[in-house]
Amino acid sequence: MEVGLIGLGNMGSGIAKSLLRAGHRVTVYNRTRARAEALRADGANVANTPAEACRGQAVITMLADDAAVEAQVFGKEGILASLPRGAVHISCSTISVALSDKLTAEHAKAGQEFVSAPVFGRPEAAEAAKLAVVAAGPKSSIDRSKTIFEAMGPKLWVVGDKPSLANVVKLSGNFLIATVLESLAEAIAFARKSGVDPAGLLDFLTSTLFNAPVYKTYGGLIVEGKYEPAGFALPLGLKDVRLVLQAAESQSVPMPIASVLRDRFLTALARGNEHSDWSVIGRVAAEDAGLAATKKAGA
Amino acid sequence: MEVGLIGLGNMGSGIAKSLLRAGHRVTVYNRTRARAEALRADGANVANTPAEACRGQAVITMLADDAAVEAQVFGKEGILASLPRGAVHISCSTISVALSDKLTAEHAKAGQEFVSAPVFGRPEAAEAAKLAVVAAGPKSSIDRSKTIFEAMGPKLWVVGDKPSLANVVKLSGNFLIATVLESLAEAIAFARKSGVDPAGLLDFLTSTLFNAPVYKTYGGLIVEGKYEPAGFALPLGLKDVRLVLQAAESQSVPMPIASVLRDRFLTALARGNEHSDWSVIGRVAAEDAGLAATKKAGA
Amino acid sequence: MEVGLIGLGNMGSGIAKSLLRAGHRVTVYNRTRARAEALRADGANVANTPAEACRGQAVITMLADDAAVEAQVFGKEGILASLPRGAVHISCSTISVALSDKLTAEHAKAGQEFVSAPVFGRPEAAEAAKLAVVAAGPKSSIDRSKTIFEAMGPKLWVVGDKPSLANVVKLSGNFLIATVLESLAEAIAFARKSGVDPAGLLDFLTSTLFNAPVYKTYGGLIVEGKYEPAGFALPLGLKDVRLVLQAAESQSVPMPIASVLRDRFLTALARGNEHSDWSVIGRVAAEDAGLAATKKAGA
Amino acid sequence: MEVGLIGLGNMGSGIAKSLLRAGHRVTVYNRTRARAEALRADGANVANTPAEACRGQAVITMLADDAAVEAQVFGKEGILASLPRGAVHISCSTISVALSDKLTAEHAKAGQEFVSAPVFGRPEAAEAAKLAVVAAGPKSSIDRSKTIFEAMGPKLWVVGDKPSLANVVKLSGNFLIATVLESLAEAIAFARKSGVDPAGLLDFLTSTLFNAPVYKTYGGLIVEGKYEPAGFALPLGLKDVRLVLQAAESQSVPMPIASVLRDRFLTALARGNEHSDWSVIGRVAAEDAGLAATKKAGA
Repeated sequence: MEVGLIGLGNMGSGIAKSLLRAGHRVTVYNRTRARAEALRADGANVANTPAEACRGQAVITMLADDAAVEAQVFGKEGILASLPRGAVHISCSTISVALSDKLTAEHAKAGQEFVSAPVFGRPEAAEAAKLAVVAAGPKSSIDRSKTIFEAMGPKLWVVGDKPSLANVVKLSGNFLIATVLESLAEAIAFARKSGVDPAGLLDFLTSTLFNAPVYKTYGGLIVEGKYEPAGFALPLGLKDVRLVLQAAESQSVPMPIASVLRDRFLTALARGNEHSDWSVIGRVAAEDAGLAATKKAGA
Repeated sequence: MEVGLIGLGNMGSGIAKSLLRAGHRVTVYNRTRARAEALRADGANVANTPAEACRGQAVITMLADDAAVEAQVFGKEGILASLPRGAVHISCSTISVALSDKLTAEHAKAGQEFVSAPVFGRPEAAEAAKLAVVAAGPKSSIDRSKTIFEAMGPKLWVVGDKPSLANVVKLSGNFLIATVLESLAEAIAFARKSGVDPAGLLDFLTSTLFNAPVYKTYGGLIVEGKYEPAGFALPLGLKDVRLVLQAAESQSVPMPIASVLRDRFLTALARGNEHSDWSVIGRVAAEDAGLAATKKAGA
Repeated sequence: MEVGLIGLGNMGSGIAKSLLRAGHRVTVYNRTRARAEALRADGANVANTPAEACRGQAVITMLADDAAVEAQVFGKEGILASLPRGAVHISCSTISVALSDKLTAEHAKAGQEFVSAPVFGRPEAAEAAKLAVVAAGPKSSIDRSKTIFEAMGPKLWVVGDKPSLANVVKLSGNFLIATVLESLAEAIAFARKSGVDPAGLLDFLTSTLFNAPVYKTYGGLIVEGKYEPAGFALPLGLKDVRLVLQAAESQSVPMPIASVLRDRFLTALARGNEHSDWSVIGRVAAEDAGLAATKKAGA
Repeated sequence: MEVGLIGLGNMGSGIAKSLLRAGHRVTVYNRTRARAEALRADGANVANTPAEACRGQAVITMLADDAAVEAQVFGKEGILASLPRGAVHISCSTISVALSDKLTAEHAKAGQEFVSAPVFGRPEAAEAAKLAVVAAGPKSSIDRSKTIFEAMGPKLWVVGDKPSLANVVKLSGNFLIATVLESLAEAIAFARKSGVDPAGLLDFLTSTLFNAPVYKTYGGLIVEGKYEPAGFALPLGLKDVRLVLQAAESQSVPMPIASVLRDRFLTALARGNEHSDWSVIGRVAAEDAGLAATKKAGA
């Protein structure tokens, strides 16, 4: 399939490689051109403008936040102005429910299709075509994009025909992960101060009741106090909690744990951890318990 | 081994059967004698008093809470007065860290040994010898009790030589489970009100990032609003959160999520859910989001 | 002084009367014209467009929220396009810190002056010239507006020369009031369920430690469960908490009580209290404590 | 009246002086005898045992916590064993609702009377007979103790005939004061980091909406970061929040703000502020906002 891809961070670059390996013809665009050039060796065409990445049957966006997506969609050379009628915009970014609804309306007006398809997984999973993809949008649009989704991960989860439903699922998932971080942070601070070896505690927990990767990975980081380098940076975690709270507020849904998470991420930020992994709330929990501070970035 | 077992609720009865099947000679005692008599068929001796269950090399207690344990330990015919010097009291109940420390001191004074060995698992796991056992106490005491632990579950997790450390681990584990309940309750209320099919959401989550049994089991109950009959009753859940908060407070460890859990369990209790499963905080989250109330016990 | 006034809700109308009584020449504008006409009897001129209210040395805005202010400022016939160079825009609305900063920049570009001057007090205080006015902006602008402020209340509190500082103070004040509501709601639910007469409790508290009007007024509403008609409606309270949280987040300041307030207001909203006074969180606290529901609007 | 007084901390000593000045014959007892001897000059008799302070028509206890009260009441030479039938025990300490209920039952069994009469006010108010006294108990007992209450403060607030109701009122009051501390701490951190002069903010707030002494006194301490020496020490504040939470839990009343307070006091304690005033949560709020730490005791 002829497909464009806008946004070549670690996730976007990984997806590009997976698409190319699956036989798609991929035109990539990135604001910082060097990241696009790097994909030539894998067979990608490099676009000079977002518009040039919009000449196929589909364009994928994989960007940092609402502002970055809006910049690529609504500009003069943007997706809305450039994508052919009938072609589909597949948004893989973690964006707000509100922006997803807005994109749905704007693309419809322009005779284009819109599918929201946020992904779960780290950059290595993106490159290895092992992402978990959650999609929502008109059935026909999703059907037509099938080979794209197949190139991204082993299974596609379709959660409805209204695109923003996929964003609700993505935000719910990230909320649950952030909750795992905070609950492990509290449990480990409690255990450490009570004299329990935290590594032993984690080994027990993840060998029995909590044998899911998210507990192992993040539990390990918190036990070791290894918050740098950041796999997923603190400000991005705070952004996701903010998006959950905003979307929930628009539906009048109180989320007390999300409120706790927000305060914790803000505290971590105020205390100078902006370049650390979002699991750095483990450091905040330790400090609040009066435990000897664990190492800090650059310290 | 000659072993006594005091406390024959669903968990205690299951453990008794596993011990008998493994070839131990078991003398059981229960305040309500009928539950003890029921185990005769499996080969158990029935004691008339707690003292009669204290004539072997070990006595196990599997009781509801601190008060129940204190009643069996400190009475005239109680364990402390009856257990031979050198014999070991293995406490499997979920009790406070403070009581565990007190039992450690009192048994030491009486020349008896004390091991704290709380368990994770449901009654079926107890009967099938599939419990996860977390033990702490003097190495020699644990070594001598090895065949007992082997009869209870496939693997023993030893977390230190101070008995109450096992209680810290047990309380940490229950705190993490309760957090899973509340975070799923919030996420599902948010998703439902946003128009996402909650069963589909849960299927996705537990097939990917959260493929641990605790998410599947409790997520299912919350999605279906099936809080009765109680697998683990709300007041017991509240008790465990209280024990976590008390133990953490004694170490000056703040636990904001535990505080949220406490308020949620109390709200659930005040609204008349005392006979429901502790996952009934899913109902509270739904009601607080203005969602049509799900079914209530006896309604 | 020749002054325009845009926004004639209960607060704006009260301010208009006070200004007229103090001898100012006032041209009023309101989207719904009837409320403007009603002020003719008091000596006001009625403008057909916001632009017509911008022909004097100053224009005051007293509007519901950010969106309403932006609509009057940035439109074609709006304040920015209409106010003479050197004239001052005095914003009395409770708006976001971010919008206040934006207005500061935009008016500066247009050669106009901007003063933020939010007020504390109810409509009766506005009409009686008894508002507490908190102002921030360039000293010269505030000095030139002195007779306007004198017409609004007995004392002016100048908190800095950056206009948005006044918004920070306003939001801090509203946060503190909302906290009083919630803490009284919790204390009264606790006391009622414990068997204490809540009216007696309130009488004691407000006769001794808490003899400030805010405790008397709102405590009385909560004790009586008299949440309708709304003096200050729930959605406005939620809006103010949202503005505090946003402004604090932009400075990386966690505010745990504000998070609790947000969840409580959302719960109240989700449970159908959107037309009630913001003190209706007293009803939420009572319901969460299992107390017989107090009366609801229209019930 | 012939009256005993047990517990001569700053509050108890002040009350003793007020009673003596009002003409009562007062026999005082304190564990550390020196504090009792110091009152001889004011006309007090000094008891060698608590029993010797129980020979009149009434005995007052003014002690630190439940444990201290239990030690004086239930010992061999204690109040229960020593007070004549028909005499009254007036408990002015801030104790738990549960202990108050227990004392009610025990004194009734012994044919003695029990009145709970916790007080609001600082040591200077105790000495100046300006305490606010909240009493509950049988009407006849309170009537007979009238001259004692008159000697303590200008007005007596009777809140019911069940003694523990007075403790509920006392705990509610302390909860509201602690809430003022935390809300001021958050508002001041927010204002400071936003560039508002906190002293100006406080002056405005306490001159207008919040002109109650509790806002002025504690707001001043937080603005100045002057948490030492402690007027009311942090561990006592934590104790009171714990008592509120316990009493509310026994009635199934969730109190989200009290939960926040508990976490904040614990954090303050864990960070080494145990000798500071309970308003030191202002320091915690500042640190969590990344503000330059304010001075610490002994630093």
